Amino acid sequence: MRCLKLVIAYDGSSYHGFQRQINAMTVQQVLEEKLTRIFGETIYVKASGRTDAKVHAFGQVVSFTTKCKIPVENIPKAVNSVLPKSIAVMSVQEVDIDFHARFCAKQKSYIYKIIQSDVPRPFQANYAWLLKEMLDLNKMQQAAEKIIGEHDFSSFQASGSTPTSPVRVITKASWCRKNDNEIEFLVKGNGFLYHMVRNLVGTMVDVGLGKITVLDFESIMLAKDRNVAGKTAPPQGLYLAEVYY
Amino acid sequence: MRCLKLVIAYDGSSYHGFQRQINAMTVQQVLEEKLTRIFGETIYVKASGRTDAKVHAFGQVVSFTTKCKIPVENIPKAVNSVLPKSIAVMSVQEVDIDFHARFCAKQKSYIYKIIQSDVPRPFQANYAWLLKEMLDLNKMQQAAEKIIGEHDFSSFQASGSTPTSPVRVITKASWCRKNDNEIEFLVKGNGFLYHMVRNLVGTMVDVGLGKITVLDFESIMLAKDRNVAGKTAPPQGLYLAEVYY
Repeated sequence: MRCLKLVIAYDGSSYHGFQRQINAMTVQQVLEEKLTRIFGETIYVKASGRTDAKVHAFGQVVSFTTKCKIPVENIPKAVNSVLPKSIAVMSVQEVDIDFHARFCAKQKSYIYKIIQSDVPRPFQANYAWLLKEMLDLNKMQQAAEKIIGEHDFSSFQASGSTPTSPVRVITKASWCRKNDNEIEFLVKGNGFLYHMVRNLVGTMVDVGLGKITVLDFESIMLAKDRNVAGKTAPPQGLYLAEVYY
Repeated sequence: MRCLKLVIAYDGSSYHGFQRQINAMTVQQVLEEKLTRIFGETIYVKASGRTDAKVHAFGQVVSFTTKCKIPVENIPKAVNSVLPKSIAVMSVQEVDIDFHARFCAKQKSYIYKIIQSDVPRPFQANYAWLLKEMLDLNKMQQAAEKIIGEHDFSSFQASGSTPTSPVRVITKASWCRKNDNEIEFLVKGNGFLYHMVRNLVGTMVDVGLGKITVLDFESIMLAKDRNVAGKTAPPQGLYLAEVYY
């Protein structure tokens, strides 16, 4: 018996999220079916966490145990040859038998892409939040800096979330301009509440639009109340970037 | 009664081509449904031509007649507000009542994108032909130059196509490098046979791979026989770029 850790990337556009569901195509289902085919035994994976419908991943991590002896270096090619091209195994590692993609994760990072555009962009609509309005990136960066460190993120937790500690440590949070029309938010932390990144982005966009000030943003965080924060940014701009162990 | 000409762009990834079909979602069906909703009367569009499943368009043209008096300048915003974001009206013009998007078209241009990559690229898989091998772009350009002018393109017509004149005039055909990994074929002509661009690209890629020479390519064209040409390039690399009137 050995344990394998796979880094996978996926275009989430046509999937109903990562986690298996009845009557809806998910990344987990496709991945497990193809792994089962290649490994010749039923494979169930543990993932670092779920991603919602339409959310993408550059570096989702899954782990599973198997008796199959296929050499590690042959796995990406074998699995990718049967996976749809919207899902790809980027790398494979043999790890300790008690490795668990979720419980062993120390940090995670996400990227959120926004495109400012007056005209429709059908080829980017599934890969970013398209906004007509101009955003003040400088103010958004000031808001981003407020979340660095250990904070109670209750204000940015999805309403109706199951009770768990809302305290998380954010180690990186920054906005950067990729080109004239495209900006990106990079955030890294020891964990994220459900919808936390999308709620942070939605509220920071309110700062960028001048609807609220950086000071308001800080007050929202300190209020520990979901009802005072901005709207949830749409899923298609979000990318699970990397999981750190 | 007036006639409107719409330029539309679409990400063809999730559609079964442009033309209406029973039991399959097509661009035409979605477009006609939304136009019908905005114009308040049943709209049937004439398009410049079909595009196959997974083929994209930057500048497909459709035309239709309507009694509705909605000002031309309001149409893109109104229609785009109800269209899925994968389809967009880029511009609208009022034209002569006897304008027909297909019969009045004088020329059309297509772009075909190829990405050379050793690693899987889930975010580009729907938008280009991903090839692991290196291509000799210089040789492919020499092949492209052979098709300029008036030729019988029987060798590049889909097998089983309905009999029609296989002679077409190509006014532009060139390969260019977009960046280290991406190349593009631009072709413009007075008309294209079914699968002609994809068959040309498939055969030119054989030239780029060194499987056949530029001279072989020319012989294939002169043979007027589909059986001697290369395979059909996959649909997701193809973009209907522009229709000229």
